[in-house]
Amino acid sequence: MTLSSQASRTGVWLIGARGAVATTTIVGVRAAARGLVPLRGVTTAGTRGQGLPFPAPEAMTFGGWETRAGSLLESARALGEGGRIFDPRLVETLASDLAMVDREIVTGGTRGIPPFGEREIEEGRHEESAPEVIARLRADLSAFRRRHALDKLVVVNVASTEPAFTIGEEHLTLRALEETIASQRGVALRASILYAYAAASEGAAFVNFAASPAALVPAIRELAERSGAPYMGTDGKTGETLVKSALAPLFRERDLRVLSWHGSNVLGNSDGETLDDPAVRAAKVESKDATVRSILGYTPATSVDIRYLPSLGDWKTAWDLIHFEGFLGTRMTMQFTWQGSDSILAAPLIIDLVRLCALALARGERGPMTHAACFFKAPVGSNEQELSRQYAMLDQYLRRARVVAVSPRKAAS
Amino acid sequence: MTLSSQASRTGVWLIGARGAVATTTIVGVRAAARGLVPLRGVTTAGTRGQGLPFPAPEAMTFGGWETRAGSLLESARALGEGGRIFDPRLVETLASDLAMVDREIVTGGTRGIPPFGEREIEEGRHEESAPEVIARLRADLSAFRRRHALDKLVVVNVASTEPAFTIGEEHLTLRALEETIASQRGVALRASILYAYAAASEGAAFVNFAASPAALVPAIRELAERSGAPYMGTDGKTGETLVKSALAPLFRERDLRVLSWHGSNVLGNSDGETLDDPAVRAAKVESKDATVRSILGYTPATSVDIRYLPSLGDWKTAWDLIHFEGFLGTRMTMQFTWQGSDSILAAPLIIDLVRLCALALARGERGPMTHAACFFKAPVGSNEQELSRQYAMLDQYLRRARVVAVSPRKAAS
Amino acid sequence: MTLSSQASRTGVWLIGARGAVATTTIVGVRAAARGLVPLRGVTTAGTRGQGLPFPAPEAMTFGGWETRAGSLLESARALGEGGRIFDPRLVETLASDLAMVDREIVTGGTRGIPPFGEREIEEGRHEESAPEVIARLRADLSAFRRRHALDKLVVVNVASTEPAFTIGEEHLTLRALEETIASQRGVALRASILYAYAAASEGAAFVNFAASPAALVPAIRELAERSGAPYMGTDGKTGETLVKSALAPLFRERDLRVLSWHGSNVLGNSDGETLDDPAVRAAKVESKDATVRSILGYTPATSVDIRYLPSLGDWKTAWDLIHFEGFLGTRMTMQFTWQGSDSILAAPLIIDLVRLCALALARGERGPMTHAACFFKAPVGSNEQELSRQYAMLDQYLRRARVVAVSPRKAAS
Amino acid sequence: MTLSSQASRTGVWLIGARGAVATTTIVGVRAAARGLVPLRGVTTAGTRGQGLPFPAPEAMTFGGWETRAGSLLESARALGEGGRIFDPRLVETLASDLAMVDREIVTGGTRGIPPFGEREIEEGRHEESAPEVIARLRADLSAFRRRHALDKLVVVNVASTEPAFTIGEEHLTLRALEETIASQRGVALRASILYAYAAASEGAAFVNFAASPAALVPAIRELAERSGAPYMGTDGKTGETLVKSALAPLFRERDLRVLSWHGSNVLGNSDGETLDDPAVRAAKVESKDATVRSILGYTPATSVDIRYLPSLGDWKTAWDLIHFEGFLGTRMTMQFTWQGSDSILAAPLIIDLVRLCALALARGERGPMTHAACFFKAPVGSNEQELSRQYAMLDQYLRRARVVAVSPRKAAS
Repeated sequence: MTLSSQASRTGVWLIGARGAVATTTIVGVRAAARGLVPLRGVTTAGTRGQGLPFPAPEAMTFGGWETRAGSLLESARALGEGGRIFDPRLVETLASDLAMVDREIVTGGTRGIPPFGEREIEEGRHEESAPEVIARLRADLSAFRRRHALDKLVVVNVASTEPAFTIGEEHLTLRALEETIASQRGVALRASILYAYAAASEGAAFVNFAASPAALVPAIRELAERSGAPYMGTDGKTGETLVKSALAPLFRERDLRVLSWHGSNVLGNSDGETLDDPAVRAAKVESKDATVRSILGYTPATSVDIRYLPSLGDWKTAWDLIHFEGFLGTRMTMQFTWQGSDSILAAPLIIDLVRLCALALARGERGPMTHAACFFKAPVGSNEQELSRQYAMLDQYLRRARVVAVSPRKAAS
Repeated sequence: MTLSSQASRTGVWLIGARGAVATTTIVGVRAAARGLVPLRGVTTAGTRGQGLPFPAPEAMTFGGWETRAGSLLESARALGEGGRIFDPRLVETLASDLAMVDREIVTGGTRGIPPFGEREIEEGRHEESAPEVIARLRADLSAFRRRHALDKLVVVNVASTEPAFTIGEEHLTLRALEETIASQRGVALRASILYAYAAASEGAAFVNFAASPAALVPAIRELAERSGAPYMGTDGKTGETLVKSALAPLFRERDLRVLSWHGSNVLGNSDGETLDDPAVRAAKVESKDATVRSILGYTPATSVDIRYLPSLGDWKTAWDLIHFEGFLGTRMTMQFTWQGSDSILAAPLIIDLVRLCALALARGERGPMTHAACFFKAPVGSNEQELSRQYAMLDQYLRRARVVAVSPRKAAS
Repeated sequence: MTLSSQASRTGVWLIGARGAVATTTIVGVRAAARGLVPLRGVTTAGTRGQGLPFPAPEAMTFGGWETRAGSLLESARALGEGGRIFDPRLVETLASDLAMVDREIVTGGTRGIPPFGEREIEEGRHEESAPEVIARLRADLSAFRRRHALDKLVVVNVASTEPAFTIGEEHLTLRALEETIASQRGVALRASILYAYAAASEGAAFVNFAASPAALVPAIRELAERSGAPYMGTDGKTGETLVKSALAPLFRERDLRVLSWHGSNVLGNSDGETLDDPAVRAAKVESKDATVRSILGYTPATSVDIRYLPSLGDWKTAWDLIHFEGFLGTRMTMQFTWQGSDSILAAPLIIDLVRLCALALARGERGPMTHAACFFKAPVGSNEQELSRQYAMLDQYLRRARVVAVSPRKAAS
Repeated sequence: MTLSSQASRTGVWLIGARGAVATTTIVGVRAAARGLVPLRGVTTAGTRGQGLPFPAPEAMTFGGWETRAGSLLESARALGEGGRIFDPRLVETLASDLAMVDREIVTGGTRGIPPFGEREIEEGRHEESAPEVIARLRADLSAFRRRHALDKLVVVNVASTEPAFTIGEEHLTLRALEETIASQRGVALRASILYAYAAASEGAAFVNFAASPAALVPAIRELAERSGAPYMGTDGKTGETLVKSALAPLFRERDLRVLSWHGSNVLGNSDGETLDDPAVRAAKVESKDATVRSILGYTPATSVDIRYLPSLGDWKTAWDLIHFEGFLGTRMTMQFTWQGSDSILAAPLIIDLVRLCALALARGERGPMTHAACFFKAPVGSNEQELSRQYAMLDQYLRRARVVAVSPRKAAS
């Protein structure tokens, strides 16, 4: 970590800052900064990232938006005690660190958006106009940057999944989107659009880890290109889909024709609660379902069920049944069960992604970070879904970055 | 298939010619030759093999060694009816084809070998000396080649697993092995060594699909190099290990530390019966177990159980439990169950491998066919265990072969 | 079987007579009648039924209603060949038997019912009025009885699941139902009500094996009591729910508190296709879900998913996850997977139930056959859901029946 | 709990008193005595035990034998922290209680036994003779009883499984056993025999929860009858076998013929470590395997694997595959996975059993407590293996005991 100077601080601004994923990320980074735990699962901290100027845990400053009440310490205790996903005593050790981060978490939200229309405005159900929301969010980011003299700023969307979203004319160009925002009449806005708009306006890198594609509509990408901001997404690949992206190539390479691929997901965290709404579930299912079709190159009967079972908490259990046909038409089956803690699986990815954003900002890159495809269910700017090929893309990018990083002329960067 | 001329016939000589794998292979090739079924699972017959002179189903002539009694038709009926692994009516349609192949199956075996020592010789328990066995086996092969005017000959070992084997001084050089054979005193011989010796002597390509490493000891490889024969092996990767080689990279790439990886295999075919003997099982378990260690680069607690449950027949069921540690030391689990017909999974691989051998013979290649690593649990000449990388090796080889195949000067080959 | 005289023939009239369950039942009974297979799974044919005058396979005469086109032989071939659920050669052996049964299958259906209202009548979309439908159905039954000089008649509902049904005032008394039928205006009729009405009017025993509770509304039960007909149902317990009813008592007896019990069912037969309609699924899920609550005596979070995956055909796969809490609040899990052929599991139960109906008719019993609770998901007339207690009820009934059957005075019956 | 007077204290003497099961039991009872947790899983504390004079948690006094070093607090911390099987903060709250119990735990063990023969005696490898061991163990028990003015004493064997044991002439009668003990020459002794001998001599009830049948050989039973002591065992039914005893009746009742039943068990606690020794495993496998055969009434192919995977700790995972045949010979499968904490599952049973022993002592019962069959894999004095019938036996016993308990004349007892 000798390459990361103290002078170069990276700000990490979390959307949904006291949610399970954000809390676990903050607990882990602070615990690593204090030398209490290794960065298990953060692969840029291993051989993969050697020789590259990634920010160390102690160089990361956290802040964010949150709409729910409660403190970060309470969130951490709930995960450590009730959820039994990490040692509850770790939380107590980090109590003062968590309190310090908590002071950087401000009330986010978009008050009445999404979506809002004439009636809401007439009834005064929205407290701010969309331009006012954006102005407020931008002010939050720039104050955070100033307050900590941050060299780089990364905004990470780990908010709950938004309801299914249909892209329209008003999302295709920056001009059209800005007109929609100004007009105050559109039902086409989503909270994530306003968050991403504010981030791109402030030149922050954007990590769309949530399963909300709205954040990266073409208009937002156009804005990011203009303001020189890199971005990546959508929908972190942490469990069942991760396994699919490793397993599906087996069936393609062996020409074992997949007839049906069914996945059942049960989970009990707030993500599960949100997904219990059929409209929200539809969005999530789509990105989970596309992986298999994309890798196989044909369309078997696929289905994905998601069920909210509160008792499971952050422990998501997925059961997949793969029914396939081999030589002489013989039909066979494979099943798998994945029992993992969503937040524990997501947190190291968040850290990897923040580090990759910091590297991209340092290298002056902008636009879609396609080399991060391995971390997402619906990678932005890439059609590659196969895990091994996605990692080959990442490793190739890092090799190139390393050549530059260690070449004499660039040593100053 | 226009590239495969009638003039160029490939002989396929199966060791264990009426076993389940051999029978399924023959049924499938004959059914495809008659246009009754597609070659599902034979990937060199798809895009992968385009533009290369592989033998078509109708250009393959079958023969082989068998020690058990019974006819090929009976074996096929047992699989089609009792085992329900393919349509029993297909067997009846192919009855005359199977009878014709049956006439090419001769009594194999090595009568008293392995292993035999002084006492067996004194007691007359062996009917032939090792040199006599080899002479007989070579005569079988050359007669088969002559009888059918075969252009190329491929010997495929699909016999039952041999007991665990320890390599010794006498297997390291061809000279040492030949002295051992001549001396008649060694306990160091295995049936598979004599089969492979005969094949290499006759310039036949050798596919060591069985889980018997003895067939490809250094002395045999030396002989193959001399006689210009290509070879590949060992232990076809058809089920549980195939899944391991696709899944284990996920854990490495995500830095999810595997603590334990346990596999339970239950099966009911003759392979299962053989593996019920602890000495035989030990050999098989070793090659199944090494995959995970090799891909991960460290040594978790691994274990593999194999149990013979006759009622399952050719349907092997494997249950794997993977216990792993993620961020903040949290422990999670994944399980999978694989329910496949061993013979149905193996047969298309055999066809692919015969085709690759025919291509190698046509190209004048000799020595280990490392590009076939994706088909084996313990690939000869390669340490690569990861499925995606193994297929990249195969595809690279085929791309190169294609360049040569379509270049004008080589068109004649 | 010496107790079943030739003179005493039992007619079995199947609603959905060429469906998978009916076809498998007919194939099995005919194969047993010809001595080709044992009655595996028919437990009244074993020790359980000893000494009681049950009809033998050869004493059962089949007929029924069907709305779909095609022949019974075609249905049987589809199951034997495509579905691989029984030996296709058995079907050919029984071809003439199946043709003979086929002649007893008449066009059933209720043409426009359910439900139908004023508009349908105005538009002429219903061809018959409800009283006309009933008259036709009754005529079918009485002709069947006469044609074969049947001693006893059992009507078995194995039709597809009907959409979710709400019981109303018009179903509570026979008078109210008959007014509704006569009025021609109600939307409260279901096909199953008309079938059951016809059966009860003809004094036939009624087995409501389908998941359609409408067939046994109070008005129908009243009619059955009057006409002296016994009945049983609802929704045959063949797979996942069967396992639940054996497993749930374990958790209750050990005071392992079930927090969540989730079941995922995937299937590909016509039942699955029907259940793909959310309205139909709702009805089925309710009866599957109640078992656990009833046995445990409290209400854990339960959920049941049903998905239609055509490639599975008649092979239903169910995955259940049970999340439970033990001593000191520790949470544990159990999972099970059930892979069974629905029709193969249902057919022997149909035979058992027909035999029990024949016994009840012989004994002059009427009303709900609560002793058959072990065969149903929602047993009529009983709240007992626990498998072992349900079988104790059955065995107690049979013991009593046996006492009567073997006592001298009753020997004539 | 009003029925349990303070005056009537029950001593609970644990063999293996700092093992995982004993520690969890003590933590649970002390936590319940202090009102921190309910007695979840202790079914005699619910409706089942109503109206009967069972000892309350605060009326139980713990002590025991242990051969390993370390303190009870350390054992409890290891389970609460590393094993994450209960809340680690509970352990700290109970620290002084655990220290107090720890003072009642004395060095057990039999020093050189089992087994020991002439050579050990010559070499002085045994420090005490068998009679000396017994005298010491009896002194430990009587001192414990005296020290705490215990009304009743229950000795509970929760020590590690002993190697497979063959019953001989010397175990059949008390006279023969006492001669063997006196002779000092037998290799026929096991530690558990000496423990049980001491317990029976002292009139203590004996709960043989460990998988060591030697403790209850006929000679020991004879001694218990003489001294008026009740006993029960063998091998607590906590997980996979528990499920088997609930599930197997389903297959029998439905006449689904089980062809194969395979169980794989992986576990990482000290029990697992002991069972990694093939000789020890053989004993355990036998009692696990018999359940299915006994319930079905025939002998399918059964097999049980046990593997030690340290990372799993106290969390045992069992996978069972059941291959069965139904109607028309169709073969189907069921699988289940059980993931439970062995100690958490065992502890409430220990408490139930101690309470049942206290009741039996109060009622002056002696000999085998067959009504406790539901708690054991190999119930002493009963062939009943089916869970529902075993619980019916228990409930019947308790009903009878209740009648006596509440009848006026017996109120004094």
